[in-house]
Amino acid sequence: MSVPQARVEASSLQLCRIMRPDDANIVGNVHGGIILKMIEEAGCIVGTRHCNTQNGDRCLAALVRVEKTEFLSPVFIGEVAHVTAEITYTSKHSLEVQVKVMAENILTGAKKLANKAALWYVPCSLQNVDKITEVPPIKYASAEQEEEGRKRYEAQKMERLETKARIEEVVSPAPNPEQHTVGFSQSSLIHLVGPSDCTLHDYVHGGVTMKLMDEVAGIVAARHCNTNVVTASVDAINFHRKIKKGCVVTVTGRLTFVSNKSMEIEVLVDATSLVEAEKGKYRAVSAFFTFISLDKDNKPLPVPPLKIDGEEEQRRFEEGKARYLQNKAKRLADKERQQ
Amino acid sequence: MSVPQARVEASSLQLCRIMRPDDANIVGNVHGGIILKMIEEAGCIVGTRHCNTQNGDRCLAALVRVEKTEFLSPVFIGEVAHVTAEITYTSKHSLEVQVKVMAENILTGAKKLANKAALWYVPCSLQNVDKITEVPPIKYASAEQEEEGRKRYEAQKMERLETKARIEEVVSPAPNPEQHTVGFSQSSLIHLVGPSDCTLHDYVHGGVTMKLMDEVAGIVAARHCNTNVVTASVDAINFHRKIKKGCVVTVTGRLTFVSNKSMEIEVLVDATSLVEAEKGKYRAVSAFFTFISLDKDNKPLPVPPLKIDGEEEQRRFEEGKARYLQNKAKRLADKERQQ
Amino acid sequence: MSVPQARVEASSLQLCRIMRPDDANIVGNVHGGIILKMIEEAGCIVGTRHCNTQNGDRCLAALVRVEKTEFLSPVFIGEVAHVTAEITYTSKHSLEVQVKVMAENILTGAKKLANKAALWYVPCSLQNVDKITEVPPIKYASAEQEEEGRKRYEAQKMERLETKARIEEVVSPAPNPEQHTVGFSQSSLIHLVGPSDCTLHDYVHGGVTMKLMDEVAGIVAARHCNTNVVTASVDAINFHRKIKKGCVVTVTGRLTFVSNKSMEIEVLVDATSLVEAEKGKYRAVSAFFTFISLDKDNKPLPVPPLKIDGEEEQRRFEEGKARYLQNKAKRLADKERQQ
Repeated sequence: MSVPQARVEASSLQLCRIMRPDDANIVGNVHGGIILKMIEEAGCIVGTRHCNTQNGDRCLAALVRVEKTEFLSPVFIGEVAHVTAEITYTSKHSLEVQVKVMAENILTGAKKLANKAALWYVPCSLQNVDKITEVPPIKYASAEQEEEGRKRYEAQKMERLETKARIEEVVSPAPNPEQHTVGFSQSSLIHLVGPSDCTLHDYVHGGVTMKLMDEVAGIVAARHCNTNVVTASVDAINFHRKIKKGCVVTVTGRLTFVSNKSMEIEVLVDATSLVEAEKGKYRAVSAFFTFISLDKDNKPLPVPPLKIDGEEEQRRFEEGKARYLQNKAKRLADKERQQ
Repeated sequence: MSVPQARVEASSLQLCRIMRPDDANIVGNVHGGIILKMIEEAGCIVGTRHCNTQNGDRCLAALVRVEKTEFLSPVFIGEVAHVTAEITYTSKHSLEVQVKVMAENILTGAKKLANKAALWYVPCSLQNVDKITEVPPIKYASAEQEEEGRKRYEAQKMERLETKARIEEVVSPAPNPEQHTVGFSQSSLIHLVGPSDCTLHDYVHGGVTMKLMDEVAGIVAARHCNTNVVTASVDAINFHRKIKKGCVVTVTGRLTFVSNKSMEIEVLVDATSLVEAEKGKYRAVSAFFTFISLDKDNKPLPVPPLKIDGEEEQRRFEEGKARYLQNKAKRLADKERQQ
Repeated sequence: MSVPQARVEASSLQLCRIMRPDDANIVGNVHGGIILKMIEEAGCIVGTRHCNTQNGDRCLAALVRVEKTEFLSPVFIGEVAHVTAEITYTSKHSLEVQVKVMAENILTGAKKLANKAALWYVPCSLQNVDKITEVPPIKYASAEQEEEGRKRYEAQKMERLETKARIEEVVSPAPNPEQHTVGFSQSSLIHLVGPSDCTLHDYVHGGVTMKLMDEVAGIVAARHCNTNVVTASVDAINFHRKIKKGCVVTVTGRLTFVSNKSMEIEVLVDATSLVEAEKGKYRAVSAFFTFISLDKDNKPLPVPPLKIDGEEEQRRFEEGKARYLQNKAKRLADKERQQ
């Protein structure tokens, strides 16, 4: 047999999988959470492999941050998702992985770009999960490339420090909320962390958490507009604290802002250990997901306005609007630059 | 019950599966919900097969009721669960399936009885899910056997009518509840029904619902006593209404009664269609689960008393206590009869 | 971002996935069935893609045969399995895919060859699943390569015709069989085919069937020797008939032959439609799996002899022994040729 050698390079990786009915919603759109989980799996493999190329403690790459990412085109059941991951920057104790997802229709041969993402990992020792080991440096094609990576590194470091300070409270909605209010669509799920959610050192894969977050956000969005909804983008996600096997995870989603054609949902992830209950509940992750509502031909539909109640909701609405306008301006600027 | 040897005929069935890490909790006890799901899968297959043996509309057996069932011995990862199902009674429009679960340790060859259950099914036409087709009659070994089946049929029919009337309200707990109160351990999960949860006519398998119910009940019990908890028994479960693909299911569990060594948890299942939101939320299923707390050697541990707050909780506590005392008396009577 | 273009060639494919607790048995060895399922997924993608590169009916590649394959080294939880698939021969109506599985330990960087396999696919039209479409020809590096492919094609065609004729009966074992007899370890499982087991035209993926077959064979082997067992090899598997969504699949395994260090298990797959019961049960697949028994250090252990009872078992034992001796001779010849 003459099957070619798998080209396994230390710093890049390709992974592909056919999309199944279980990966998608009723009308066949693959959930954003499934894409995020594949992206993180690729990042974790390429990151862990790289950090173990030098002598020293064996370690696993733990996800600490995902940069803002946009879902550029929908993926459907039966298509093959190709995930390409590459290490693009290394600092002393962290590394950046850039990931691209292409969706291929194997019947027609058509391919489209579904997602591009950048993830930051930190290597944790297998002996002592609280010990962060050193990352072997990569080689850059040019000094310019290295400099750009360094800028991205500094920017994300700053942002991670900022978001640590700000932790939103989860409040249960009033009974019998009116339709189109925040309380009407607010939703929570609990999930008991099992073995197949976890890495080798019994902590939850970042990708598993993101899949749960996308699931809750999708339910919130569907409750608000009663249509087929899909993930349009996810704001930068910071993984503040690890979640261990045997924890119960509570994932809560609530609408913060609604524009004509999009909904912003804040998703908060809290963890509690069932066996070490004295440690109490802690915030593990939080992020903003943007969803859009689609008609039968996958064209965006108008979204019902959000009924705001109280100062807190008003403040979150204004903040969401600011993020929306900022992203819109950024997209326009990107477009002009490309022309 | 005297479930006969597996002969693979139209009216009986054996099914087996090895228990995997994901089927169990952290200390290796297989979740009661996994056992319930296998029981229902066997019942659904044997029931559907039987109802299609005569000419007429193609149909699927839909679960309408599970009789009270006890978990007699724990099942562990690596053991093989053998599920034997047999049709034991047929009325014009429903049938009873009795199911036995044996756990086999394939390394030592040891076998133990894990569970016995009785389920009632109704055949729904594949063309029109609201049409109930006729059930071909089975042959009984004796007139006495048929008569006993008829009594069980009448008893469950009566009970199903009674429970329809009584539907408990779900109330969100007050913020910051004190430990060991009902509000402290009350838990909800939401689940978006996907294709693999469903039967051929796109309704949720009864077994899937029971698995979610057991999951929530287990989290409530673990939150109350912070130990390893396992399902000891489940009260009769009535499936009032079907749940369709594309629904969001909210499963809520709350403690109703606590004895020295056991906890009773009421579990309420509400469904809402995301796409037909005007239909509103409806109660699909409700049941009482009893959990016990185990130490490292699988011996029962004392359970912290429940702090009751308000008339409603007091009433539910008294009702739970009555059920507890009734079950205890019944167990004693059964024991004496066997001696 | 400068993530490199996914190199998606029509006739080859790479797929990789990290091995999780659910993929393995209690001691951490990844099940042979999981490897077979990944191999088939890669083959199906590359085959379907190739058959749709020309105009004409859209079609899916349906698995019709897997050549004898050996599991060369065990794969463990936490390792990354890299699956490389390439089309190596095309006839007018079928194609051969050769697949290689490398297991990579991402902590140590060690890589080992886990499996090599060859699969035959036939393209079925999406409009009419019984219509076989034409396969576009591939280019060969040399005339010799094409000639070798043609020989493999003729050989498998002949064998497929032969095995069609011979269909073994499944007999239930006598009650209370003695240890180490065929009846003692004989095992069956049933599985209700769900949406996520199926291809786009609602037929079961060959890989799903092979995974179930490996599961049953593993239970039979573990019952016979009460130790940790792993798949050593699988004889050529022919997929006689397709299995549709909504079928119940009964997979039965029984020991045919036991040598000092290995067990041969015949696995028979029968399918019945629940809703079209009049069509009866039919044999869909059959194959021989060889398992070995391992101690704590993954070294082979001696296997208890098989107690034969009756002429049928004796005949199957002799046939198994002939296969065993033939394979042994072939392995020796291969070794000598390589030296």
